[in-house]
Parts: sequence; structure tokens; C-alpha cells
Amino acid sequence: MDCGIAIPSIIYHLSSIIGFHMSEFRRDPIMGRWSIIETTNPLGPGGFDVVPHAPGAGNACPFCEGNEGMTPPERYAIRPTGTAPNSPGWTLRVVTNKFPALTSEGELDHRRIGLFDLYNGVGAHEVIIDTPDHHRQMADLTPEEFTRSITAFQARSLDLRRDPRLKYTLLFKNYGFSAGASLEHMHTQLIALPIVPKRVQEELRGSKRYFERTQRCPYCDMLDQDLKERERIICQNASFMAICPFASGMPFELWVLPKVHQSDFAKITEQGIADLGQILKESLLRIRTALSDPAYNFIIHTAPIEPQERKEYHWHLELVPKLTNSACSAI
Amino acid sequence: MDCGIAIPSIIYHLSSIIGFHMSEFRRDPIMGRWSIIETTNPLGPGGFDVVPHAPGAGNACPFCEGNEGMTPPERYAIRPTGTAPNSPGWTLRVVTNKFPALTSEGELDHRRIGLFDLYNGVGAHEVIIDTPDHHRQMADLTPEEFTRSITAFQARSLDLRRDPRLKYTLLFKNYGFSAGASLEHMHTQLIALPIVPKRVQEELRGSKRYFERTQRCPYCDMLDQDLKERERIICQNASFMAICPFASGMPFELWVLPKVHQSDFAKITEQGIADLGQILKESLLRIRTALSDPAYNFIIHTAPIEPQERKEYHWHLELVPKLTNSACSAI
Repeated sequence: MDCGIAIPSIIYHLSSIIGFHMSEFRRDPIMGRWSIIETTNPLGPGGFDVVPHAPGAGNACPFCEGNEGMTPPERYAIRPTGTAPNSPGWTLRVVTNKFPALTSEGELDHRRIGLFDLYNGVGAHEVIIDTPDHHRQMADLTPEEFTRSITAFQARSLDLRRDPRLKYTLLFKNYGFSAGASLEHMHTQLIALPIVPKRVQEELRGSKRYFERTQRCPYCDMLDQDLKERERIICQNASFMAICPFASGMPFELWVLPKVHQSDFAKITEQGIADLGQILKESLLRIRTALSDPAYNFIIHTAPIEPQERKEYHWHLELVPKLTNSACSAI
Repeated sequence: MDCGIAIPSIIYHLSSIIGFHMSEFRRDPIMGRWSIIETTNPLGPGGFDVVPHAPGAGNACPFCEGNEGMTPPERYAIRPTGTAPNSPGWTLRVVTNKFPALTSEGELDHRRIGLFDLYNGVGAHEVIIDTPDHHRQMADLTPEEFTRSITAFQARSLDLRRDPRLKYTLLFKNYGFSAGASLEHMHTQLIALPIVPKRVQEELRGSKRYFERTQRCPYCDMLDQDLKERERIICQNASFMAICPFASGMPFELWVLPKVHQSDFAKITEQGIADLGQILKESLLRIRTALSDPAYNFIIHTAPIEPQERKEYHWHLELVPKLTNSACSAI
């Protein structure tokens, strides 16, 4: 998979039913890629679902209203004043993942076994429950609901970066079982990492090389070229552009980029949040209509946790519909 | 996906029903990753199957005996002397992919459009039909059949490298629809490329860095450590070891490595071919038994096409069962 964090190993945790986990970051000694590996309660082969677990609406779903007791306590919520935390009435909740890939406890404890480097699985793994309604899809959210979700992404990203051990916040959504969603009820995930994913490091290096040559951000130049050629723009508004990247890795891959240079997603403005909701909704509706409601993943690619803006890097959202099963994407 | 060649775009071609394609290699200007993109007959959204096409046995299957006319002419075959090419009686056939991602016609024609680099889609895309029997799986092949398949892999790799435009031969198998197989009948694919996939370049760079420091091959050292620790060995024979890599990117990922250093798969000896068949069969049987016959992909990672052996690089086969749907593997 050639991923910074081999996120699929996280799915391992999500699909398990064991309550407490210890995990390790392990580094591939040749590629430099880190994986998160379960260590205390490794599941036997029987612990893996070939078809992921999919509870329906109602009593069985931990993300439905009335089932607040089925999740860890909320870390953030939008709810009427006067309602108690972890009680019904909310419109958005953020909770720790019940089967976290990483936890905030313990020390990083960098060590080496022969060729191999490893850290303890220190970090955070939260779930943003975007709506109490089991049957809504993100494409159906109202502008106000989008604003709530994106505001929660920002708020949790800013809160988690107060932990000095953490270097990166990774926001992503899996929609549909074939995209890795383990629960039907809409949710977004946030993983905070003590390392910068390899993929992001490569983007940073590639951008830096370009910037050193040109003194310009390559993403800004890409937007300029796409605006001139008008062949790859899907839609746009005052703050954002949605494009099909020139060297798309997957069919119908879609990127959303801020038009004005910004390296850190968490610095998004109030207007930016509203416009991001608008362009996300339009993009998701177009994908749902054109491709018959496919499964998809999106990931927000942003700069590492650091005080300064990067002139060469440009945060963006990458959305990949799952139309065909990926074959040998590892090479 | 962060792949050298974003192979999933090839599935695009395989799942299409259009007979002739022109394609382009397009380079992501920041990551340096190349994708193969269809240019002449881009499919509309309706051209994509969410559920891949799956013809059953018999008349509909182009890989079954008697249906030789449904494939392009054979480029290599194992058949009794006296039988005509493209007639029944064969035990193994290699044909050009009917919907090739790349073709040998035309010039590479490297060009640039603003920020973006591209080449024409020059290369080769072949299918090894390992057996005429529609219902066999690779795990069921006899030692003789394994020897035939691996000998064909080697022979086609050696033949294709006579084209001086080509720099890499990529051998892979997709088993099961969820691993991207577009036909049920067992087959292996070979893609010859005018570029070295990014993932392989990274392996080469990582190995070189290690070698410069230690004067040893990192894969040889990894095998030594795995032999000492005895925690990650799945099985072994005189020539090969099958291991779970320490920093496995996916659950139950399995690597097969030659015990004696060798950088180029195509230099495999006769004994090596027999032993590779044996360890592959044992590995596949173990995976089928332990994980209830999962879909899987394997890819042979080998050195670029070049005359010299590389002291720092070690060819190997990476096999990934598809147990959970990969979520955000792109980061």
C-alpha cells in the first residue's frame, strides 16, 4: 500500500470486538513506512470479518440517539444548553473510538530490535458522529450541518495538537463497506499521530523541491493551470476548487483545494468552513448521481503540527470513489 | 494509493469492453508517481462496474480451452508438439491482454504541459493463463504446473526486456473479485513498463542507503534476524523463506524471499523455480485454510531491467490477502 501509516491495519482494530488494545508503530527498515500493529490481543484468523460488521438502525447502533452509553464519553458535542453530556438531544458528538488504534496513555518509548524501529502506539483516535440520524449520508447534510461537522474537525484538531508528543492529525471518512466503513451510521474519524505519515512527508519534500526552484507553491500553480485549461475543474466557489487531478491515481478521484494558499487545515476561517461545506456537498452529490452512489474515502492532507505556515505546502482534501477493487496498488 | 504506477487505473481498462485503447503515463508533479490514464476512449461513468464482470465457465470464458479465438494470438504456450498455435490441447498460454493498459506501438514521446510530464502508453500487457481448467485455483496447482507457470513468468520477462524502451517488468496476480480480478478463470498478469515504479525506486533507494552504511543487503539481514528470532517465519525450503514482515502493512501480509541473495527474479534457476512453486503452494494453502479462502494479490518486486546484479537489492514476492476493505491507504 505504500502508505505512511498503513491505515488498513487500523481497520483491524475497528473490526474487532475486544475492548482494550495495545499497539505499536513499527517501521519498515527499507521503505521507512510506519504501520500500526496490534500487540496485546492479536486476533486469530477467526477474528477477521471478510464481510464487515454492519448493525442496522436502532438499538444495535452505538451512534444513534439514545445509545450514548454504548460509546466512550463524549469529548466534544453540539447539544442544547441544559442537556447533560452523553444524553440524548445532541446534533453532533465526538467520542474516543471504542476500539482505538492508538491511545494517549503511556510513553512513546522509541526502541530498536535489530534492524527494526518501533514506538508504542501513543496518539488519539476519535470518531465524529456527524448526525444522530442513522440514515443520513454526508451528501444530504444541510449547510448548517456541514458547518457543524467541519467546525468539529477543526476544534478537535486544534485541541489534540496541545499534546506535544503529537505531530500530525489525520481526518478521514470511509463511506460504504467496500471503502472500509465498519458501521453504517455516518461518521468521520480523526487519528492524531506522533509521526508524520510517509505520504505527507513525500508531499512536503516534493513541494519543497518545487518551491526551491520556482519560489511558488506547486498546488497554487496547479490551480492556476487548471483554471486556464478548464479541463479538470468539477466545481468551484469563492474559496475552493474541486478538480480531477491530471495524474489521477484512481478513476474519478477528486481533490478539493483552497484557492488562497493555506498549508494548515485547522487555520480555516469561518467563511472557509461554509464554502468547504458547500463544495463538499456539491462534489458528493455529483459523485452520487454520476456513479450510482459508490463507496468512497476522503482524507484531508494537511501540514504537520507546527506553528508556522508553509509557503510550499497547500492543504487539500482527496476523495476517492471505490468503483473497482484496487488490485496491486502496492507498487 | 501512492503507487509507482497507479495500477488501479489499469483495472479501468480491464473492466471496459472497448477493443482498442490509447493511454498515457502521467506524472504527479509533487509526488513523482506515474499513472496510466486512458485517453482515446474514456469511458463515461456508465462504463464502470461497481461489481466486476464475472463470466462463468464454458462458452463465455475467453481463457477456457476451445475459446482460443476469444483472445489475441498466443505469444508463448506449452502445448503438445503437432498442435497448432491458438488451438486446443495446451496446458499454459500467454496472450496479449485484450484490453491492454499499454501497447508496444508508437513512440514514448516524453512531453510536458505546463506543470505536468507525460509519455505515451508504450509497454506491454500480457496475461498468463496458468491452466485450461476454469475451476482450478493457484493453490491447487501441482508442482509441475507451478514449474510451468513460473517458467513462463521468467521466459516472458526475459523476452520483453529485449525492447530497449522498457525498464521494468511487473508480474502480479489478482485472485478473487475483491482483489480486482476481472475474470474468474485463474491468470497472472505481466506489465512491462518504460519507467521504474515509484515503489520500486523507493525500495532501491532505501536498500542503497542501508548498503552504504553496512555493506550488506537489508533483505539478507532481515532474513538473518527472522531466522534467529523465529517469530515471523511461515515456512521455508532449501531456496526460499516465507515470512510475515515485521512492519506488515496489512494483516496476514506474506513475503517470499530467496535465501541466497539475488536482485533479479528473471535470473531464477531451475531449482529455484521448483522451490518457489513449493513454497508458494504451501503459503497459498495455509492462507486458504486459515483465512477461509480470501481474495488476494501478489506482486513480484524485482530489480529494474539492467545487466548487472545489485548487491543491495533482493527480489521478493509480496502477497496481501484482502480481509478487510482498505480504507484510507493513500496516506
